[in-house]
Formats: sequence, structure tokens, C-alpha cells
Amino acid sequence: MVDTTSSVAWAAKPYPEIAEIADREGSVLIVPVGALEQHGHHLPTGTDTVLVDAVATAGAERVSDEVPVLTTPPLWLGHSPHHLPFGGTVSAEFDTLSDTLSEIADSALGNAFDTVLFLNGHGGNRPLIAAATQRVGAEQPDTEVLGLTYFELGEYFLDDVRESDLGGMAHGGELETSMMLHLHPELVDEERMQATEWETEYEQAPGDLLGSGPLNVTLDVAEWSDSGAMGDVSAVSAAKGEAMFEGFVDELEALLRTVHE
Amino acid sequence: MVDTTSSVAWAAKPYPEIAEIADREGSVLIVPVGALEQHGHHLPTGTDTVLVDAVATAGAERVSDEVPVLTTPPLWLGHSPHHLPFGGTVSAEFDTLSDTLSEIADSALGNAFDTVLFLNGHGGNRPLIAAATQRVGAEQPDTEVLGLTYFELGEYFLDDVRESDLGGMAHGGELETSMMLHLHPELVDEERMQATEWETEYEQAPGDLLGSGPLNVTLDVAEWSDSGAMGDVSAVSAAKGEAMFEGFVDELEALLRTVHE
Amino acid sequence: MVDTTSSVAWAAKPYPEIAEIADREGSVLIVPVGALEQHGHHLPTGTDTVLVDAVATAGAERVSDEVPVLTTPPLWLGHSPHHLPFGGTVSAEFDTLSDTLSEIADSALGNAFDTVLFLNGHGGNRPLIAAATQRVGAEQPDTEVLGLTYFELGEYFLDDVRESDLGGMAHGGELETSMMLHLHPELVDEERMQATEWETEYEQAPGDLLGSGPLNVTLDVAEWSDSGAMGDVSAVSAAKGEAMFEGFVDELEALLRTVHE
Amino acid sequence: MVDTTSSVAWAAKPYPEIAEIADREGSVLIVPVGALEQHGHHLPTGTDTVLVDAVATAGAERVSDEVPVLTTPPLWLGHSPHHLPFGGTVSAEFDTLSDTLSEIADSALGNAFDTVLFLNGHGGNRPLIAAATQRVGAEQPDTEVLGLTYFELGEYFLDDVRESDLGGMAHGGELETSMMLHLHPELVDEERMQATEWETEYEQAPGDLLGSGPLNVTLDVAEWSDSGAMGDVSAVSAAKGEAMFEGFVDELEALLRTVHE
Amino acid sequence: MVDTTSSVAWAAKPYPEIAEIADREGSVLIVPVGALEQHGHHLPTGTDTVLVDAVATAGAERVSDEVPVLTTPPLWLGHSPHHLPFGGTVSAEFDTLSDTLSEIADSALGNAFDTVLFLNGHGGNRPLIAAATQRVGAEQPDTEVLGLTYFELGEYFLDDVRESDLGGMAHGGELETSMMLHLHPELVDEERMQATEWETEYEQAPGDLLGSGPLNVTLDVAEWSDSGAMGDVSAVSAAKGEAMFEGFVDELEALLRTVHE
Amino acid sequence: MVDTTSSVAWAAKPYPEIAEIADREGSVLIVPVGALEQHGHHLPTGTDTVLVDAVATAGAERVSDEVPVLTTPPLWLGHSPHHLPFGGTVSAEFDTLSDTLSEIADSALGNAFDTVLFLNGHGGNRPLIAAATQRVGAEQPDTEVLGLTYFELGEYFLDDVRESDLGGMAHGGELETSMMLHLHPELVDEERMQATEWETEYEQAPGDLLGSGPLNVTLDVAEWSDSGAMGDVSAVSAAKGEAMFEGFVDELEALLRTVHE
Repeated sequence: MVDTTSSVAWAAKPYPEIAEIADREGSVLIVPVGALEQHGHHLPTGTDTVLVDAVATAGAERVSDEVPVLTTPPLWLGHSPHHLPFGGTVSAEFDTLSDTLSEIADSALGNAFDTVLFLNGHGGNRPLIAAATQRVGAEQPDTEVLGLTYFELGEYFLDDVRESDLGGMAHGGELETSMMLHLHPELVDEERMQATEWETEYEQAPGDLLGSGPLNVTLDVAEWSDSGAMGDVSAVSAAKGEAMFEGFVDELEALLRTVHE
Repeated sequence: MVDTTSSVAWAAKPYPEIAEIADREGSVLIVPVGALEQHGHHLPTGTDTVLVDAVATAGAERVSDEVPVLTTPPLWLGHSPHHLPFGGTVSAEFDTLSDTLSEIADSALGNAFDTVLFLNGHGGNRPLIAAATQRVGAEQPDTEVLGLTYFELGEYFLDDVRESDLGGMAHGGELETSMMLHLHPELVDEERMQATEWETEYEQAPGDLLGSGPLNVTLDVAEWSDSGAMGDVSAVSAAKGEAMFEGFVDELEALLRTVHE
Repeated sequence: MVDTTSSVAWAAKPYPEIAEIADREGSVLIVPVGALEQHGHHLPTGTDTVLVDAVATAGAERVSDEVPVLTTPPLWLGHSPHHLPFGGTVSAEFDTLSDTLSEIADSALGNAFDTVLFLNGHGGNRPLIAAATQRVGAEQPDTEVLGLTYFELGEYFLDDVRESDLGGMAHGGELETSMMLHLHPELVDEERMQATEWETEYEQAPGDLLGSGPLNVTLDVAEWSDSGAMGDVSAVSAAKGEAMFEGFVDELEALLRTVHE
Repeated sequence: MVDTTSSVAWAAKPYPEIAEIADREGSVLIVPVGALEQHGHHLPTGTDTVLVDAVATAGAERVSDEVPVLTTPPLWLGHSPHHLPFGGTVSAEFDTLSDTLSEIADSALGNAFDTVLFLNGHGGNRPLIAAATQRVGAEQPDTEVLGLTYFELGEYFLDDVRESDLGGMAHGGELETSMMLHLHPELVDEERMQATEWETEYEQAPGDLLGSGPLNVTLDVAEWSDSGAMGDVSAVSAAKGEAMFEGFVDELEALLRTVHE
Repeated sequence: MVDTTSSVAWAAKPYPEIAEIADREGSVLIVPVGALEQHGHHLPTGTDTVLVDAVATAGAERVSDEVPVLTTPPLWLGHSPHHLPFGGTVSAEFDTLSDTLSEIADSALGNAFDTVLFLNGHGGNRPLIAAATQRVGAEQPDTEVLGLTYFELGEYFLDDVRESDLGGMAHGGELETSMMLHLHPELVDEERMQATEWETEYEQAPGDLLGSGPLNVTLDVAEWSDSGAMGDVSAVSAAKGEAMFEGFVDELEALLRTVHE
Repeated sequence: MVDTTSSVAWAAKPYPEIAEIADREGSVLIVPVGALEQHGHHLPTGTDTVLVDAVATAGAERVSDEVPVLTTPPLWLGHSPHHLPFGGTVSAEFDTLSDTLSEIADSALGNAFDTVLFLNGHGGNRPLIAAATQRVGAEQPDTEVLGLTYFELGEYFLDDVRESDLGGMAHGGELETSMMLHLHPELVDEERMQATEWETEYEQAPGDLLGSGPLNVTLDVAEWSDSGAMGDVSAVSAAKGEAMFEGFVDELEALLRTVHE
């Protein structure tokens, strides 16, 4: 369903209002990009989309008095080939998604936004977001084009919140489960929480959603985890999820204010 | 935002529940396909997506006790090149959308649905839906593949409800405005309702969303209508919208029961 | 072979004559689109192409004193994946044919035709024609672009001619067999006439070539018919074929005169 | 129009007869490939297609008592970007035509032909035919795939027939005009015959349709010739055209017998 | 020119030797990926290719006694749209390069390498390498697929070597100039060294080749730098370049040994 | 490795020097195109690339005092599907290579070269070179676009040098082995020289690299030759290779001077 309640939702406005916002100086368009994929036994398949959309909307609402900003509905279709063996996953090809993001930008920017931000919530979309930022940046020379995977903003504050070791905040782990407990507790099956910690054999590769490293690797999720979830769910809580969510919204708010300046 | 409340929403379920539903005999997957495009001064740009998603969800909920059925989140990105000049419109290319529907089917059908139904809510998507049904039908020989534009079901009951002449139930006219007044009155700007009746020079071409005819034509909306809306908004009402909505849901319910048999 | 005898055949004229016709006001280009596919044991594989080309040529010749009109040679290659299992079928992909029609229009319209009409004679090409009309219409904004499957014009007169019930005028049935008996009796093997009537389980789907309905379905011909032909061949005749052919030509003539005005 | 008279025409046969021919040992399928393009003021735009189809049909008929052979209708759409400026030309992209030939082969070879021969009649299609032979050869490992531009067979006999110097048998020159005078004199406008001799600045490039040389060059026809025709039309005649046509048919006959062995 | 001297060069070996190496356990194939693009007034356009090839070859030679390893010739064609305005740049599209890397892997892995490593030397190729690693990883499930931009290995040692501040080791700056002075001093024009320091307005974006940050941005080089070079060239030297080069080779050596284990 | 020593190497120059050369009247850019594929037991897989690059560089150096000329690094990735079964072969698809050559030309010609010459050294690339010359010629109307497979220049002098019969100068035979013995004797394994003579069943098809004929055929190398090499290696020598190499360079020199005029 498209969001019909938020004051920053493109879909809830008639076109003249959209044009009015886009025309203002320093206007920003946020395109949330999620996924529909298995997240273990305890989280719904829409988790990535729900989370990135919530962060995008809350961040945009925080600044909308000063910054002319809109959000498209979230793209719920991501690139998830590595999750297909579990079922419950709907995935599109890299090229199809790259064309999709390019065409969203191309038609949306018929309205005169000064900046477009692809805000991503799915690890498997990261190469896509990097490529789309580069591509759309070349295709739309008059627009500032940015790409960001929201949970990477965690490097600025999450060390203070996390309790798990490196490897604990992966697919359906401490981070995503806590945030869902905060935002949608009715969609979390706490009795079926189960996840396998993420370990990599390469010290040059990222250790979990928050870790970084120069080496790109290909992960075989189905070999790695029985349940499909990866990380540590031993210390999840709604309170921790709230702290995480507010942290991300703070960071996004700060970024949007910088963009607008 | 993905729907997190409906009992038939794929996105709100963890993957094992999805597999369980798909495995039951006569299971059906509905993929709602909408658009994000200008709908005149009085309707929000998400109108097509909101309406098709509401019909799909209500129809599926009606039968879900007997028919194992799920709905993906609606594809809010449609093919709307003819609306781009107005602004407020986000559109993708035919080929990108055809690939998208094919890939949605391909990965979704990794789960063993017996039938997939592309349920469309945007006039400009009709060739796409016809082509995708044919394409996915060939690509997925073990699955029954159906395509339907929901408002065409109106031929079975709408003549009793409509008050406008042919040409009145077009883009943002009597049909869509009344349905939005029923479902989301807060999103309709009744003070700015304005639309141009649709007329075609060819008797062989459809006269409005409900009319039919063998001739395919290309419509230049921007030449046709100042406001971007087409049809008759003189006799819209929430009550009429309710009658229309319930009529569509009845028809979809009947179709889903036939499919399941 | 390209037609070298008709006065409206592009292929039989040197280029300066083509330019002269295209430059006249209200000029029309017809692109007949057929198929090369199995039509049962009694009809040749070129049936769809032969018929659509005959209708296009006769319709154009009828008006050529008043309307500046030309026909390209028929595209004999259509989209027929559902007939491949029988053999005798040559089929191209949807995307290849869509590109082909777009490129035909693009280069043909270097000559200044005011209207281009894709005139189709194969049921499996209908989504293609709808999509191509939309695509070429967007690509050629200065040209009126029309698409039509000729036998759908039968809704205006065929009820008076047909003797079969709904389901009788399908692939190689009463309609096509009678028309071939009229135009090319030497190519019809009357001793091997055999066809299976077309039935659909959905009342919302078309009942045969003439029936209509909003539901797109995928048909598995090979499951349906042993011979490959579908419909009713019990009451075919050259006389009936002549009445049908003349009816289609009348309808096309009327449409071309409307287009020209 | 598809050929409905020849005994070797695929389009004129019902599918069981096609399968019967394809199944015989040493069966051959010929796919004639032409063009629809300007050929000066005196030749029709369908010249290349008419000629290659006539050669293919006559060659196949000569051997059909011994060699199981069929011809598809000619592909009248070729690659002619260099002729577009004159008008009267319909051209497709290289990639579209390459896909078309690949898909024709792929579906036609569902019938068990042992050999497929792409027989080309347009100079601008030569790279396409070379590429398609290579591509289809790799895609159809069980089939012998051959490509041939018929007039290049002239190296075996044409020196005895031609009267023009090198440069005289180019686009619409001595060769094509004479052959058309033989086959379709009613389509040749002898009063408007006019052509510019072809000259190349490179001795390593071919001097006309018959000349050879290793250097690929790009020719700007519109700069070269006012009328669009290139070559020498001073000594054309139907008798010479007959000698040429019979020579090509002899050569094709010989090749088909070799293929069959 | 392909490397004909190194003991690890695929191109210098006949095919049976390649097969022999690939068949050994833990075999590794390195595909160096560079660019041909402007590097300011003082560095040759082949800089990225020269450097990545030198690192790849030296790293592979270091371990070739224990690790069965080969290097393809470097791909000198990269994705450099942002450098085209300067001239001297040859660039390919993202999709073409993605297909190229996929096809290199697909055909190379007909030989049974256990691991393939795309080793990149150009900043603008980073999204490509991430995407290709993901794509090839999915296409080649039996092979470990890795991607790495060599200079990102600098995070493990370069802080000890660099003298410039953040922003100094960008395109043609301290890093690349010093390495070229070490490896190919004859190709560095020390009299024309000139570069603009790289600054970003976002603290969330990388500060230079070595800096990291979650935000993807699009850089307009031509707006940024007059010479085309970015960074700090005030303290470049061959000695520093040697230290850098040896550092990278050490890191690559360590990684290759880990891969082999 | 890119060539860092030749005075005509694009890769070894900073961008301002490239622009200066391109701007001069009659400037020429040579793009050598090779392959990385099995060449029997005695020649390295890089043979085609090594040879074409050597010819291109030597030819360009000969004229560089008068003709402003540069060479890109050789494209070492060619179209070699017919060699894949042997191993040791890296091949790309026709379409990928066609896009690659088009994009190389498109970005290289941002610099104002008057002529671009694709100089090919691999038989399997010939259709590609013909197609690319045609394509780039249409895409770059202001540039003269040429394509040439260097060994076809042998028709002007090789009959005096060759000792083998027709069929002896094929893949890894008398020609390539002798040239490698001249240029890179250290890469030829003279003890493992072995090749099968090339024979074709069609007199209309080329008899070896030097023979010509109008018929395009598809060759199954793996069926033909055990070693992968084809031709005659009984009379190879470095002296003969030198005569051949100098002959090709003479011919290329002459062509470049003609181009420049």
C-alpha cells in the first residue's frame, strides 16, 4: 500500500503540490529501496522495506519545515538472488533494477528537484546503489545524486548501542530484529527467533552490516544458516530498537540539512 | 509502505508461512500493478495504486478462508509516458516493467503457487499486462497465468451505477474520484475537482475506461485536458464509490473462486 | 515474394513515387503483420499473413483514389510460441518484434506519412500490436499511430454471417478456412479439415476470435487440439469466405476514410 | 505477399508436409534475406528482395526432386541505414536483424533440417549474414549453417557476361537493372535510368558488388550519387539479365547439390 | 601489448599449461582491471592499467611456487565517463563492462580455477567490481569470486607512508605519481606536475582514495580540477612509490595465501 | 601490460599530447583487436594479440613522422566460441564486443581523429570487424571508419613467401608460427609443433586464412584438429616469419599513407 498519511509522501499529493515543493531551492527527493526476502523464521519478508521506509519518512518529516523534501513510495523489489533458495523471496535482476532506478530518476526529475537520494535498506542492494548513483549522476548532470545504505550510518553511533560482537548485526540479527520490535512488534515472532552468527574467512571483508573492508565476497546464505537469519538475537529489545531507529533518523536528518545547504 | 495489517499480505509474513500457503492446492498469488502519475488537481498521484491495492486486498480477504491466496505489495511504478508533461509522474519503460513482472513471477513462483494473477489499475498498463501474461505464461508452463485490469470488470455491473455518459469514467473521472471519496476522502480535494470529458474521433476505439473497441489509439493527454483529469466529476460521491468498490470486489471474489476450482 | 502487382505496394515503386504519396495531406501507411505457423492439417502455415495482406491491399486499393495510402510487404514473422510444439512454425520473440515494428515505423516515417496503421492478422500478436501502438505513438509524436487486428472488426457485421457458435471462429476454424477457400482454394486441403472447438473455463475471457472479455489468459494449444486447429469447420464455404472478406474490406475502407478526414 | 505457388514454399504448405520434408536426410532450409530500399529512379524499392527470392526459389525448385528443400518467405526488411536519406527505405538495426535471423533459425530448426542457408541479396546485409552464420552456427551445433550473398557467386561466371568496368555492377547498376528487366520489366522505368559509377579511393577495398578486397569501408551513398543508384546502366538488357539470373541459379543449384551430399 | 615475460601470464602460455595450473587444488585466476583515462598533465593515460597490472603480476609471482595462479592480461578499458571532457580518455559503459567481466569469467572458468579475483586499479570502476563480484558469484556457484580495488588495501599500511593530508591521494596525486616514479619514471613528466586537492562537502563521503564513508556521491572532475589531476603532488618520490608498491604487493601476497588455504 | 615504450602508444602519453596529435590534419587512430585463445600445443594463447599489436605498432611507427597516428592498447579479448572446448581460451559475445568497439570509438573520437582503423588479427573476429566498421561508420559520420584483418593483406605478397599449399596457413600454421618464431621465439615450443591441415568441403568457401570465397561456413575446430592448431608447420622458420612480418608492415604503411592523403 502506498503511504497516505505522511506529509512528505509524493503518492498522497496531487501533482501541483509536488511541483511546488520540487521548485523550491534546495529541494530533495528520497527514493527508499528495500527488498522482499526471507528474514528467518521470526521476521516478515518485508522487513528491509519497512525499515528503510520508516527511516526515510521520519528523517524527511523532521526537516520538512525547512527543507523541501518528498519521498516516493519504497521500491519493495530488490536484488536478492542469494535468498531465493529459502522461498518467500521476490527478487529482480541487477540490470532491471538499475534501469528502474534510472527511469525513476529520469521521470521524477522532470520535476525540478535539486538532489535525489537513493536510500537503501538491503545489503544485497549495495552494489546496485553504488552503480545507480554513478549512472544517474552521469545521466542527470544538473542534479546532485546521492546513494546511501542507511545502516552504514551506524558507524557514527551504533558502537554505543550494540551488545553483540562483530557478526551479530547481520541479516535478521540484533539490528533488524530490535528495530522491528520497536516499530512493528506484532510482526515479530519472538518464539521463533534464531540466527547464525556471520563469520568470514577474510579479515579484508566486512564482518557484518556495520563492519567494513575492501574485499568484495559472495556469500552463500543457504550454506551458512539453517533458518536464513544471520547474526545474534540474544539481546534484542524494543528499547534498543528505538535507540537504533532514533540514531539513524538523527543521522539522516543531519545529512538532509547538509544537502539542503 | 508495505501493508503490515492484512492477513493476505506476503510482506507481513515470515517465509515459512508463505511457503505453507503456496503449497496448498489451488493457491493463488495476486500481483497488484498501479502507477504514480498525475490525476488532475483533485486526486493524489498514487490513486491507481491505492485503488488496485484496495480491490486486490479486499477480494483476497473475502476468499482467504477457502482459497490459499496472497498479495505482493503493489507495484507503484507503471508505464505513464503520456502523463509526464504534467509533472508529478514517475514512469518506467515498457521493457523494464515487462522484465520486472517476469522476474517477480519467476522468483515468486519458486514458491509453488498454482496461479498468478497480475491485477492492474492503470489504463496505460493494459498492453503491458497483456504482454506480461503471454510472456510469463510461456516462461512458467506449470502455472496458470492471468492478467486483468480491474475496472474492466465494470462491464458486468457498472452500467447500473454510473450516471455519466460514455467518456465520463476516464482518468480521474466519475469512477476513480468516487472510489477515492469512499476509501480516502482525506486525499480528495473536492474544491479543485475539474475534468475534461474524453471523446475519440473513432467509433472503433474505446470511449472511456469501460467502453471497448478493437482500435488501439495513442492519446495525447496534455493536448486533451488542461487539468490532466479526464471524464465527468459532476456526480461523484462516496456512496457511489462504495457501490463501485463493492462491485469490483464481488467480481474479483467470483473470479478467484473460479480460479481456485 | 513481395507484391509486385498492387497499385498500393511500396515495394513495387521507386522511391520518388513513395515520397510523393507520403507528402500528400492525410497520407496513410499500412503495415500488415501476420505469422508463419501451423494452422491444422488443412490450412497452409502462411494463412495469417495471406489473409491480413489481402485485407490490407483490398482495403487500401478501394480508397486509393482519394486517400494517399501505401502498404509495406506483410511481416510474415509473428509471435507464436504456443504453436511451436506442432512444427511448421517460425516465431520471433516479443521484444524482437517490438523493436522491428518500432524500427519499421522510424525509418518509414522518414517519409512524411500522417498516419501509420499496424494491421494485424494473428491472435498471438495482439499484445504486441497494443504495445507497439503505444510505443510508436510515444516515439513518433507527429504521426497518428493506430493498431488493429482485422478480425476484431467482425464485431460490426460477422454475427450475420457466422453459423458456428462462440468457439467456432478460432485458429483455423470457420472464419479462416472460409476466407482461404474464397481467396486461395488451391491451398486448402478439404479432405483433412479437422478442428477442436475452443472453450474457456472463464466467462471473463474471450470465447473465440470474435468474443471479448477483460481477462488475459494463456492458452496451451498443444493440450487443447490434436490437429492444431481450433474452432468449427463443419460449415465452411467459399461463399461465406467471400462475404467475410468483403465485410472486413468494407470496414477497413470506412476506417481509412475516417483516418484520412 | 507470401508465395503461394512455388512447390518449395514453406508458407504454402500445412505443417505436416513441412515436417515430412525436414525429416528427410540432407534436408535444407533456405532463408532469403533482402531489403526494402531506394534503388534509384528506375528500380522499385523491393528490388533486392525480389531478386534474392527469385534466385532462391528457382535454385531450390531445380533440385527439389532430389534434395528435400524449402524456402521461407523472404525477409524484406534489411539493414540499410546508408540509404535512409533518399526516402523510400525501411531499415532495421543490425542487432534486431541478428536476433531475427537467430530466432527464425531457432524455431524453424524445431523441424529437423540438416542445413540452413541464409541467402542474401543486399550488400549492406553482408556483415549481418557473416555474423548470423557464426552466431547460429554456435547456437545450433547439430545443424550446418551457411551464409551466402548470391551475387558474390558471380565471380565464377559473371566476367563473361558483364560489359561494364569495375564499378558498374553496384547498387541499381548493370546487374540489378538487367535482372529486373528479365524478371519484372513492368517494374523498371527505362526512361529514368541513371546511375553514378562506384569508385573507391582504396585499392584494398572492393570495386563493386563483384570486386573483392580485404578493407572494410563505410560508404556515404548520399554524397556519392544524386539518383541513389550506383553503377553503369548504359548496357542493360533483359537478355543479359536472363544470362545473369540463369548463371546464379546454376551456381546455387550446384551448391545445394554439394550441401545435400 | 600482452605480457610475454612473466611466469604467471596466461597469454604467454600454450593452453595445455593453463589447464594444468587451473586443475591444481586451490588455483586462482587474477583479472586485472584498469582504465585508459586522463591523469593530469604529468602522468600517462595508461597509469591505472600499468599500476594494477604491476601489482597483480608481482603479487602472483611472489606466491606462484605454492599457489597455482595465473593473471589474464589487464582489461585496459574501464568506466570513466567523468574524465571524458578532458580528452585522452577511452571509456566503456557500465553494462558493457559488466557483461565483459561476466563473459571473461564464464569462459576462463571452463578451466577449473577454484577462485577468480577481479583486481581493480581505477576508482570509477568500484561499483562495477562490486556488481561483477555479486553477478559472477551467482553465475559461477562452484567458484569463489572475489573483487578488490588494490589501493583500498592501503588502509592496512599506507598511513605510515603517506605525507599528504586526506584529499592528497586521489586521481594522479601522491599515491599514483610516486608509484609511477618508481615503476616507470620515464613516463612521468615531473615538470608538469600539478593537481588540485580533493575536498568533499560531506563528512559521510570518502575523503580520497584511502578514505572511507557510507555516502556514494558523483564527482564532477572537470569542475574540480583544471589539470585533471586531483590530490597532492608536493611530496612525491620514487622511494615513496617503492614503499607503496611493496606494501600493496605484500598485502596481495597475504590475501592470495589466505585464498589458497 | 600496456605498451610503455612505443612512440605511437596512446597509453604512454598524457592527455594533452594525445589531443595535440588527434587535432592534426589527417590523423589516424588504430585499434588493434586480437584474441586470447588456444593456438595448439606450440604457440601461446596470446598469439593473435601479440601479432596484430606488433604489426600495428611497427606500421604506425614507420609513418609517424608524416602521419599523426596513435595506437590504443590491443583488445586482447575476442570472439572465440569455437575454441572454448580446448581450454586456455577467454572469449566474449559478439554483441559485447560490438558494443565495446562502438564505445571505444565513441569516446576516443571525442578527440578529433579523422580516421579510425580497427586492425584485426583473429579469423573469428572478421564478422565482428565488418559489423563494427558499418556500425561505427554510421554512428560517427564525420570520421572515416575502416576495418581490416591484417593477414588478408597477404594476398598482395604472401604467395611469394608461403611454401605450404592452400590449407597450410590457418590457425597456428605456417604463417602464425613463423611470425612468432621471428618476434617471440622464446614463446614457441618447437618440440610440440603439430597441426592439422584445413580442408573445406565447399569450393565456395575460403581455403585458409589467405584463401577467399563467398560462402560463410561454421567450423567445428574441435572435430577437426586434435591439437587445436590447423595448417602446415613443416616449413616454419624465423626468417620466413620476418619476411611475412615485414610484408604486412609494408602493406599497412602503404595503407596508412593512402588514408592520410
